[in-house]
Amino acid sequence: MAREIVVLAYSGGLDTSVCLRWLQDEMDLDIVAVVGEVGQEHDDLEITRQKALDMGCLECRVIDMRQELADNYLTWAMAANAKYEKKYPLLSALTRPVISKYLVDVAHEVGAKYIAHGCTGKGNDQVRFETAIHTLDPSLGIIAPTREWDLLTREQEMAWAEEHGVPIGQSKAKPYSIDDNLWGRAIECGVLENPWNEPPDDIWTITADIDDTPNTPEEVEVEFEKGIPCGINGQKMSYLDCIYKMNEIAGKHGYGRIDMIENRLVGVKSRECYELPGPLALILAHEALEDMCLELEVLHFKPTIEHQWATLVYNGQWFSPLKNALDAFMNYTQQSVNGTVRLKFYKGNCTVVGRKSDWSLYDEGLATYGEGDTFDRTAAKGFIDLYSLPVTTWAKNQRSHGIEQ
Amino acid sequence: MAREIVVLAYSGGLDTSVCLRWLQDEMDLDIVAVVGEVGQEHDDLEITRQKALDMGCLECRVIDMRQELADNYLTWAMAANAKYEKKYPLLSALTRPVISKYLVDVAHEVGAKYIAHGCTGKGNDQVRFETAIHTLDPSLGIIAPTREWDLLTREQEMAWAEEHGVPIGQSKAKPYSIDDNLWGRAIECGVLENPWNEPPDDIWTITADIDDTPNTPEEVEVEFEKGIPCGINGQKMSYLDCIYKMNEIAGKHGYGRIDMIENRLVGVKSRECYELPGPLALILAHEALEDMCLELEVLHFKPTIEHQWATLVYNGQWFSPLKNALDAFMNYTQQSVNGTVRLKFYKGNCTVVGRKSDWSLYDEGLATYGEGDTFDRTAAKGFIDLYSLPVTTWAKNQRSHGIEQ
Amino acid sequence: MAREIVVLAYSGGLDTSVCLRWLQDEMDLDIVAVVGEVGQEHDDLEITRQKALDMGCLECRVIDMRQELADNYLTWAMAANAKYEKKYPLLSALTRPVISKYLVDVAHEVGAKYIAHGCTGKGNDQVRFETAIHTLDPSLGIIAPTREWDLLTREQEMAWAEEHGVPIGQSKAKPYSIDDNLWGRAIECGVLENPWNEPPDDIWTITADIDDTPNTPEEVEVEFEKGIPCGINGQKMSYLDCIYKMNEIAGKHGYGRIDMIENRLVGVKSRECYELPGPLALILAHEALEDMCLELEVLHFKPTIEHQWATLVYNGQWFSPLKNALDAFMNYTQQSVNGTVRLKFYKGNCTVVGRKSDWSLYDEGLATYGEGDTFDRTAAKGFIDLYSLPVTTWAKNQRSHGIEQ
Amino acid sequence: MAREIVVLAYSGGLDTSVCLRWLQDEMDLDIVAVVGEVGQEHDDLEITRQKALDMGCLECRVIDMRQELADNYLTWAMAANAKYEKKYPLLSALTRPVISKYLVDVAHEVGAKYIAHGCTGKGNDQVRFETAIHTLDPSLGIIAPTREWDLLTREQEMAWAEEHGVPIGQSKAKPYSIDDNLWGRAIECGVLENPWNEPPDDIWTITADIDDTPNTPEEVEVEFEKGIPCGINGQKMSYLDCIYKMNEIAGKHGYGRIDMIENRLVGVKSRECYELPGPLALILAHEALEDMCLELEVLHFKPTIEHQWATLVYNGQWFSPLKNALDAFMNYTQQSVNGTVRLKFYKGNCTVVGRKSDWSLYDEGLATYGEGDTFDRTAAKGFIDLYSLPVTTWAKNQRSHGIEQ
Repeated sequence: MAREIVVLAYSGGLDTSVCLRWLQDEMDLDIVAVVGEVGQEHDDLEITRQKALDMGCLECRVIDMRQELADNYLTWAMAANAKYEKKYPLLSALTRPVISKYLVDVAHEVGAKYIAHGCTGKGNDQVRFETAIHTLDPSLGIIAPTREWDLLTREQEMAWAEEHGVPIGQSKAKPYSIDDNLWGRAIECGVLENPWNEPPDDIWTITADIDDTPNTPEEVEVEFEKGIPCGINGQKMSYLDCIYKMNEIAGKHGYGRIDMIENRLVGVKSRECYELPGPLALILAHEALEDMCLELEVLHFKPTIEHQWATLVYNGQWFSPLKNALDAFMNYTQQSVNGTVRLKFYKGNCTVVGRKSDWSLYDEGLATYGEGDTFDRTAAKGFIDLYSLPVTTWAKNQRSHGIEQ
Repeated sequence: MAREIVVLAYSGGLDTSVCLRWLQDEMDLDIVAVVGEVGQEHDDLEITRQKALDMGCLECRVIDMRQELADNYLTWAMAANAKYEKKYPLLSALTRPVISKYLVDVAHEVGAKYIAHGCTGKGNDQVRFETAIHTLDPSLGIIAPTREWDLLTREQEMAWAEEHGVPIGQSKAKPYSIDDNLWGRAIECGVLENPWNEPPDDIWTITADIDDTPNTPEEVEVEFEKGIPCGINGQKMSYLDCIYKMNEIAGKHGYGRIDMIENRLVGVKSRECYELPGPLALILAHEALEDMCLELEVLHFKPTIEHQWATLVYNGQWFSPLKNALDAFMNYTQQSVNGTVRLKFYKGNCTVVGRKSDWSLYDEGLATYGEGDTFDRTAAKGFIDLYSLPVTTWAKNQRSHGIEQ
Repeated sequence: MAREIVVLAYSGGLDTSVCLRWLQDEMDLDIVAVVGEVGQEHDDLEITRQKALDMGCLECRVIDMRQELADNYLTWAMAANAKYEKKYPLLSALTRPVISKYLVDVAHEVGAKYIAHGCTGKGNDQVRFETAIHTLDPSLGIIAPTREWDLLTREQEMAWAEEHGVPIGQSKAKPYSIDDNLWGRAIECGVLENPWNEPPDDIWTITADIDDTPNTPEEVEVEFEKGIPCGINGQKMSYLDCIYKMNEIAGKHGYGRIDMIENRLVGVKSRECYELPGPLALILAHEALEDMCLELEVLHFKPTIEHQWATLVYNGQWFSPLKNALDAFMNYTQQSVNGTVRLKFYKGNCTVVGRKSDWSLYDEGLATYGEGDTFDRTAAKGFIDLYSLPVTTWAKNQRSHGIEQ
Repeated sequence: MAREIVVLAYSGGLDTSVCLRWLQDEMDLDIVAVVGEVGQEHDDLEITRQKALDMGCLECRVIDMRQELADNYLTWAMAANAKYEKKYPLLSALTRPVISKYLVDVAHEVGAKYIAHGCTGKGNDQVRFETAIHTLDPSLGIIAPTREWDLLTREQEMAWAEEHGVPIGQSKAKPYSIDDNLWGRAIECGVLENPWNEPPDDIWTITADIDDTPNTPEEVEVEFEKGIPCGINGQKMSYLDCIYKMNEIAGKHGYGRIDMIENRLVGVKSRECYELPGPLALILAHEALEDMCLELEVLHFKPTIEHQWATLVYNGQWFSPLKNALDAFMNYTQQSVNGTVRLKFYKGNCTVVGRKSDWSLYDEGLATYGEGDTFDRTAAKGFIDLYSLPVTTWAKNQRSHGIEQ
């Protein structure tokens, strides 16, 4: 009788290769492997595919998810100026849902009963994958081998691999744990686990050290349409291309590193380093354009929405009704976010040095202190008198009780 | 019969000198001038004092408000990681209330019936002064000459000054409008009023141009006690001294410029440039320490408090019950914010490269993927299953109506 | 030469009649009067129209705005569970924008240069009318005669009216100031201005005194489609009819009175009484249905949106980008709010006694403590362990510093 | 060798009696039972104590926690106007932390290694107990027998009890699950699990049916000091006594029932009925007094704090830094909440009919439309012009793009 099928999110690395064999040997399952191309640094994916087949997978599908990722996932992160805990424009949290969607689609196609992933039992990604899969199809079982087996150290894992015929030839212990995609790179573990340690230079690969950056500034104009980058330096291009291009420019100038302690959903603080040169530059430009195009009350309320959005997505609730409702809010606001922002890159810095827009609410006539002033100064007294009335009334009452400010 | 007395916030510059004479000539008032030393760049204040007396003031008091400003005002800005519209750690809004407090005290002492200020009718400062004075003593009348007179252009003002014997010898038209104090500098007007223009180099005076910065990085350790900086590089010093010291270090390395479009309370957007090297560096360090010392839920809720605090203070409601209540919230949170942060300055960049604290909630045993892991991985499955239950239930129901995610 | 035209929001009462004449005599304007039918209690509107014409208006248009009010204004109030300061589902704030829209339309049609309203200078309605008109057409001038004239007491107003030939025959001093529409009634002034006074019985006209209510309970089923009432007791009807019907039923049972102190936008607290039997009952039912149909995170975040919405609309910002963005959020959430709620009215009480929905996220299998339980109890331990990890870590650290909880 | 000791939260009912024996027989532990007197309806607690001893407990302590509960727990609920999901002023969530505190104290005293509770694996109380205990002393083990055993139906439980000599004589199957304390009563299960069913009359015991209430209204004056009730009808009494007294009065008039669907922390919606006559009346009065005594901005921001507080406490995070910080916010606001509120009870209704306070910010001079008006109406125009400037600017720009409001 045919074995049940499990769809495995496969990377070709040691961990998911051991998962693959463990699912075959310990769970007695047939495997359909899915390799997601999300813009991560990788060797030839054809070799990865062959490796999966060599290990006995029924099938191994390499799927290019980049366009989908940019158009339906990274767009919302831009609209939300996504920054988890004020700093970090997300990264793994943005690919987990898109990968999950493909995993579920493949599971349906091949009649799989299970989906498996190689995420550890103490991180966020397990929550993101499983929450996404639960919402996409709750009837699919989920297997997380690393949570179930007892291969707790790298040595145990290597030994098991050898014993079970998992090819480990090229595997060497890496000093860090990396996750990357076209948006950026996340680096954790190793010496970084001591938060007093400065990150070693060798963790950074897509942002130059300041000493290696060009000695002349570079100005870049980014054009936005409905809040989404659509052109660079006067040349129209897709959002996906804008991200690639901006990662290149900003990275060359050494801009876009983050070193932070963050709160994982599973209740622990961890020390994380990120490099996201392009996204950080684009979000900076996007916010500058919003400052010009969004009305005061929108601008003052939107951070509440953004904070909620980033937390929700970090926590794996991409496919959720609150996410959808927040998106609807943001979608309306972005209709007015059209225009161009000029950025200047130099020695690790990215600075907004100009912005212009047909949708600008900046009115030089109202703002100027010079010629052409159209602001009615006589209005101010009435404004102040009524604006300050509540606190004035309060202060009077406090004074009647002997309380001075 | 003696004339009524007005206390005037006096700077020695043309505007407040014209105010001074206008109050004498047009309002028939006697003047007590108050010159606040808040750390602004200034000439000899004794000369300013003499100038006021020469113009016929009853009295001119030069008051050093810096210690008070640091201890009772800038402390709260630090606790709040104050950033108006996400970017700007306030500046004028922090001195207006402390100056108002002194103005009211002097008014009480000298039996003045009025307080006068030289703020324009389209800015925020008029609101801040008047709201503060209303709450401190609503029985005091407030006079804002620049809102009442018809000296709309600089030429008219100069002509009036000459005609009324206001000394204008040293006055020359300045290309920008500046406000500064020990916290930093604000620059507006002139060519900056076109938001597509890059700020000219000459507007910056306390932050070096990147090309003029040292060619070696400098690491600085900042120590915090209950959220307030209390030492630099191992040497204990007052918060006031920390600010001065950090402005010097950070400014030397070219860190701390802001160029933004912001929303004034009076309903207009304006383009503002700021340089706040010390405050920006200290807040960066403070936030990094909070990331380590504040518990997840506090860290995720505090931004709501911070946002409200910055907006309220920007809007001139320093002396207000909501400000007091927000301070109480923050005060509790800051009890745990003790420790040291290592900053690295280089070529306009300020980076957190280490943090340590006895109050740290970062637990390497829980966080590590290496030896010594104390995290219970088996807990994760139960967590995910319950955590994702609401969205799973929702997705099932959506599917029953034909709605796929 | 023809006089300029002003469009006047006209009610037929003394105040707006005096306004009408004042605009003619003092401002030398021609009048086009607009009488809005918004469901208020009124005499024959044909008589009102004739009165305006008799006083020399160019034209007087009686416009039935009820359908528009229900379909494009009260729908959003329902979606938002609108309650200003937790209690008051708005009333005047909901008609001001719709009336403004018609005023502006008429102004455009007749080529008017001004719009005039009879609102007092210390209330909210002036802000609402003028903010709405400014956004709809900032080129239109606005005249608020009551802010400009010096007819400060009723006696002065009556004398002026008599002198200028304003018909006042039927006018008698009313003890309260009333505003009403199809949504409900607002009552203020007179003895109500002392907040220790109980509202006299005679202020209430659409809600019965408890002693006059039926002696048997009445159950009513309300059906909702996308969050909007669409049927009562099994009979489909328009939302407008649902409001009328529910006002009648709930009012008969003495439900729907509010007595509160509220904060006006212009900085003063006022004591207000309202009766809104239908809206309060419908919102109660709507919330009960949302409790069943909205997912946990949506339900916990939506109040933030609702609070913002109610405050914004109370403050007259109906035509504003934040309002539009909040509506977009709510619109998404309401797609799932379909079902039926059973209310029970009795002796001033309205109670939800049942609710059902195809879109319900209540899952008896998960909730039950009896037979058929499908909840996995073993998941709880893992959940609790991770959920409580941040506070446990915090408490441990606190204890290390001698701080006990 | 002595067995390890477990401290058991004991009620005397079947469930905790079975837990008691199970801990002895299956876990081989010695028991110290703790019976918390929190104002619940109960038989003679001496009998309960004897029962525990008869079953072989080392010790059984009956502890009166009511004063502590009122003074250090229910005070904060009042300050927060605690309402989970807008409706429910909490109940079980308020006793769990105080009981936990005593359990941990006893554990320390008797040298126990474990604490046990009888909460089910799908409710909130397990989370509340365990989170509280983890924070109070993470070294204590926690045992939840009902999550571990396999006595899934009442029949199995009864059979096991009989077999293991647990006295079940008086036990009969109850149709509902009840939790109660001096604050109120919670009723769930049975026919209530179908949310379309009206709650049967017999679930209510402390609120009268409307037909059984007095036929004359009763007015009650409640006095508050710093936000806490301190007197009723002119007679000073402790907060604890106020709660008892108000439960009696309000219950007699049939006020204080809640029937709702709520979201449990563990991810399921459940249908719950509550009766909390006193708390609901006191919170109503408290809010009315706050409307009078709190300044506009405080009043508009405090709901955000309240919402967070209620959710946090419902979720079992009583002993947490965010709770403490929120309390600090509220504590400041409550300093001004002093005064008297007059309530009227009649036929299930509780209405605020008057309020007065020396700390009132209601200013009749500012509010009145009659004689003695001190409001400056001329201020309004300036206020409106600046207040509406942002949306006016926005609307102009929208129109330039062909977008009409």
